[in-house]
Amino acid sequence: MTFNTTLDSIKTYEAGKPIELVVREFGIPENEIVKLASNENPLGASPKAIEAIIQNACNAHLYPDDSMFALKKALSQFYKVQSNEIIIGSGSDQIIEFCIHAKANQKSKILMAKTTFAMYEVYAKAVGAEVIRTASHQHNLKEFLESYQQHKPEIIFLCIPNNPLGECLDSKETFDFLKQVDENCLIVIDGAYQEYAKAKDSTKAINPKTLIEIFPNAIYLGTFSKAYGLGGMRIGYGIAQQEIIQALLKLRPPFNLTTLSLAAALEALKDQEHIQKSLQNNLMQMPSFEGFAKEKGFLYTPSYTNFITYYFESPLDSTQIADYLLQRGMIIRNLASYGLNAIRITLGTHEQNKKFFTLFEQYLDER
Amino acid sequence: MTFNTTLDSIKTYEAGKPIELVVREFGIPENEIVKLASNENPLGASPKAIEAIIQNACNAHLYPDDSMFALKKALSQFYKVQSNEIIIGSGSDQIIEFCIHAKANQKSKILMAKTTFAMYEVYAKAVGAEVIRTASHQHNLKEFLESYQQHKPEIIFLCIPNNPLGECLDSKETFDFLKQVDENCLIVIDGAYQEYAKAKDSTKAINPKTLIEIFPNAIYLGTFSKAYGLGGMRIGYGIAQQEIIQALLKLRPPFNLTTLSLAAALEALKDQEHIQKSLQNNLMQMPSFEGFAKEKGFLYTPSYTNFITYYFESPLDSTQIADYLLQRGMIIRNLASYGLNAIRITLGTHEQNKKFFTLFEQYLDER
Repeated sequence: MTFNTTLDSIKTYEAGKPIELVVREFGIPENEIVKLASNENPLGASPKAIEAIIQNACNAHLYPDDSMFALKKALSQFYKVQSNEIIIGSGSDQIIEFCIHAKANQKSKILMAKTTFAMYEVYAKAVGAEVIRTASHQHNLKEFLESYQQHKPEIIFLCIPNNPLGECLDSKETFDFLKQVDENCLIVIDGAYQEYAKAKDSTKAINPKTLIEIFPNAIYLGTFSKAYGLGGMRIGYGIAQQEIIQALLKLRPPFNLTTLSLAAALEALKDQEHIQKSLQNNLMQMPSFEGFAKEKGFLYTPSYTNFITYYFESPLDSTQIADYLLQRGMIIRNLASYGLNAIRITLGTHEQNKKFFTLFEQYLDER
Repeated sequence: MTFNTTLDSIKTYEAGKPIELVVREFGIPENEIVKLASNENPLGASPKAIEAIIQNACNAHLYPDDSMFALKKALSQFYKVQSNEIIIGSGSDQIIEFCIHAKANQKSKILMAKTTFAMYEVYAKAVGAEVIRTASHQHNLKEFLESYQQHKPEIIFLCIPNNPLGECLDSKETFDFLKQVDENCLIVIDGAYQEYAKAKDSTKAINPKTLIEIFPNAIYLGTFSKAYGLGGMRIGYGIAQQEIIQALLKLRPPFNLTTLSLAAALEALKDQEHIQKSLQNNLMQMPSFEGFAKEKGFLYTPSYTNFITYYFESPLDSTQIADYLLQRGMIIRNLASYGLNAIRITLGTHEQNKKFFTLFEQYLDER
């Protein structure tokens, strides 16, 4: 059977190893496995969100409120925007997909950093668009401007802070760059890790309300998967002026969130105390990761997220390191597929992190 | 801002009124509202599936196993096919989307019955494909064959049994039709209500294993949203030969199911006793709906699903009837948007159905 030729260039996405898979492969008991690979909140979801799931479990047969009235209202109050300036997706991944399907096609160009969130390219290829990347791995606005002027892309993705490297653009410099972009170019500000960046340095904060007031061509993406501890529930959102939201809503499949996801997100948003606790834990754990890298002589990117990236030099090899750790029940993300001799480690609880350092020491001793 | 021209022809999908919305509009207490509009299982999900949700609520922060190893294995055993002949989606809606995105584009034609599941057209329009419909509202294989030979569509949708009308093609006649279709035409057999059809009449059963053994160009779609009582959890699946599954997997976004949905589906599939109970309730409730229609002189389609469609003649008007019922807390689906003076009623519990008959009697008395 023949398929659309756009499929030819798409590789099937492979996610980080789930705990279950490691259990199967190495026969390691599930409770001994530590997964620091998917930037999940090590403190879990808000207890109030968990309680909402339990209370609503008996409604699993009922389709969700497809207007998402309550969650949109809560988000609109939280961000001081209008409900009709919000679209809710199955993770912010889905909003990325809508943006690309609404704006790009086989004749389009999409601009992004050399090393950034993998899904931008996956969805770009699904519509046959050409992906343009800046020369530097990390976001560099001078390169973005040059590349923008040369290629005139239909969409620009800025991941602020950036996954999987951890660096973070300054918000004022970002706004200065955006002023030089034509109003028909869609600017996607992916703020999946903004909560962490803001907690560390307020000059990194992107305010969605301010952003969309100044830039009618910008959309801010947020998620409940990281600081809000609901990665397994698939809830993300986009904030933009109505013209963009209305276009994206045409591409939204009905019932794109589960009934329980909506209930959980609503409670998670209310429980800002849990968020503060999660951000505090992250800030407290970060210095030990930086100290470990310095002590061992690894380069790392100062991180504005809940993960840190270590870069290695030969003979140290990220694939070998990742495999060594995996076989001992420690799952981290190898960045070899990004063309980097590097690993990305999610900051866990104090105990989980200690186990990471111990195993890594052991690896260095044994080799 | 300009968007892809394919968006011009897309209308934003409007789902059935959620209970919450009716509560807001008419001030009716939530516990007095009966929703017989979305073909949800009135007995709810299996108690074992609900328990799985509760037990896994504390894992809401963990991304799901993106390989969906356990659920694919369970489905492969249930249907006696291979795991790599299965794709799992966020509802079978998402598999419909994958099929259209994999196979169709602006030059394509997609063939379906005049009145059938609305999402086929929604996704067809999203890629700019032309929708060809047979002349009769219900599925008519003679018309399908003529239309197929005339238009040579890239995809054919057969909804067996058909939503929103309830009729069901015979499986032998369907297979005879499929033999006359070229192997490069993708045939989608939407079996969302197959459990109900099989329980009523075994000649309506489509066996996915047999289907895909004979037809390398066919895909069977199933769902956990109807008989399995997990409409709010968004779980559907497609069964086809590997060539098709591998193409569709390229379009699957990672983590397209929630962690809790996977856990719930696994338990729901095991609890066949709950399915039997649900199918029995449906078979027991159907005669009262048929009897009511006969008594009042409405036409209806003998239904192979968990809903029934009543057709009215002037001066009876489906929109007026739906509004009357809605204002009294009874939500059913008005089919006026399909160009029909008809309503679709989901079969509920005995008590819910009694309330429907009482309110309908009241309407007829008052007018």
